[in-house]
Amino acid sequence: MKIVLLGSGNVATHLAKALNSEGQDLVQVYSQNLDNAAALAHLVGANAVNDLNNIEQNADLYIISVKDDAIGTVAAFLKNVTGLVVHTSGTTDINVLASQVKKAGVFYPLQTFSKSKDVSFENIPLCIEASDEDQLAFLKGLATKISHQVYELDGEKRKVLHLAAVFACNFPNHLYALANKILNQNGLDFEIIRPLIAETADKVMDNLPENVQTGPAVRADESTIKKHLSMLNDMPELQNIYQTLSNSIKLMPK
Amino acid sequence: MKIVLLGSGNVATHLAKALNSEGQDLVQVYSQNLDNAAALAHLVGANAVNDLNNIEQNADLYIISVKDDAIGTVAAFLKNVTGLVVHTSGTTDINVLASQVKKAGVFYPLQTFSKSKDVSFENIPLCIEASDEDQLAFLKGLATKISHQVYELDGEKRKVLHLAAVFACNFPNHLYALANKILNQNGLDFEIIRPLIAETADKVMDNLPENVQTGPAVRADESTIKKHLSMLNDMPELQNIYQTLSNSIKLMPK
Repeated sequence: MKIVLLGSGNVATHLAKALNSEGQDLVQVYSQNLDNAAALAHLVGANAVNDLNNIEQNADLYIISVKDDAIGTVAAFLKNVTGLVVHTSGTTDINVLASQVKKAGVFYPLQTFSKSKDVSFENIPLCIEASDEDQLAFLKGLATKISHQVYELDGEKRKVLHLAAVFACNFPNHLYALANKILNQNGLDFEIIRPLIAETADKVMDNLPENVQTGPAVRADESTIKKHLSMLNDMPELQNIYQTLSNSIKLMPK
Repeated sequence: MKIVLLGSGNVATHLAKALNSEGQDLVQVYSQNLDNAAALAHLVGANAVNDLNNIEQNADLYIISVKDDAIGTVAAFLKNVTGLVVHTSGTTDINVLASQVKKAGVFYPLQTFSKSKDVSFENIPLCIEASDEDQLAFLKGLATKISHQVYELDGEKRKVLHLAAVFACNFPNHLYALANKILNQNGLDFEIIRPLIAETADKVMDNLPENVQTGPAVRADESTIKKHLSMLNDMPELQNIYQTLSNSIKLMPK
């Protein structure tokens, strides 16, 4: 099976490495920026290209892993290929591809990727979708080679999952950053709070989060909440976040 | 060294187990509820008591691990003891003890405890404070026996740390719960999102969170933000949280 990868960002990079180490044949890596294409292509033994007119036309699979609003533009160059064309976006409808190419699909890894940190792909949930059953079976075969967790999800569910991921990943990370801001302003180092962050995440590996909520808000400890809010008097934005999330915790059914 | 533990909640339980497995002599466990006192006392080979008038008077250390607003009340029964009296609260001033007892201190473990989940105490930051240098040295000696991370922090810094912990632990856990709510309403299981939560926390073990922020807000991807907000139309409270946190992410210096 010959695979063409269109994109060289975080998702493209981690996916390329995972496919390559599973012995898949990546023949070409495209990026607008030839240096980026070359760097990734070199890692996985592919050719680099920065012109969409030069995309290999006879591959079995085309993986478009570019910014959401560029997916349609890239797909327009794949109208004549007979291979399956997938994107890796959580929010983009399959029709952005299906309206342009012969065989369309989605191959969405639910994870937060940084170029600097390796992740074990086998533990990453892969959400797949395809325009027909044959293509779905084909994608599933590939997905199960690189991940233990493969989910067939339609576009609506995938979008819900992407939204949930913002709450479970992007927002918690921002709260870690706000905690660090509070610590730094008082001469304390982020290191002191790392074990707490690790344990908080670890706790929900075997429990549901609503069953292990701790802190002043869930205890309705108004005296502590009041003290905390007054400590944030010179950071009105953090005060607002504290109030908003504490109120939301109080509203959760117990 | 003889230790009396006043309290039988999550912190008291985990602390008692850690001290006991380090060979410390817990002589008495107090709780208003005798069954609770007996259950914990049994675990660590201590006597159970539910009357503050019957507290052993000749111990070397008294650890008060009760609700914040009950600390002063409990301490009032320890006015005549010569041993050191500490509390385990992040937010309570040392003076709540120092105004009543001869020797006062604080022994605050920065962690989120559930009775059902064991934690390795050695990786838990212990924040200590005492009313004089001798007592501080005594507390430090004990603290370093059960934890690799011992911090001498005054009350102001401890309160800052407790506030930061709400942002780094209680609020992220609530966001996990909201993610689960979104998933459940759409027939998806929390299991699918657990690897993402684990990786998000793991990422900040070696990085600062502000350097690894991902998601639509940090990319200023207004089209995705708009779609997400409209998906939350029937959950105005989650919509408000989404908007508030996304705005805050956009305000972070890059």
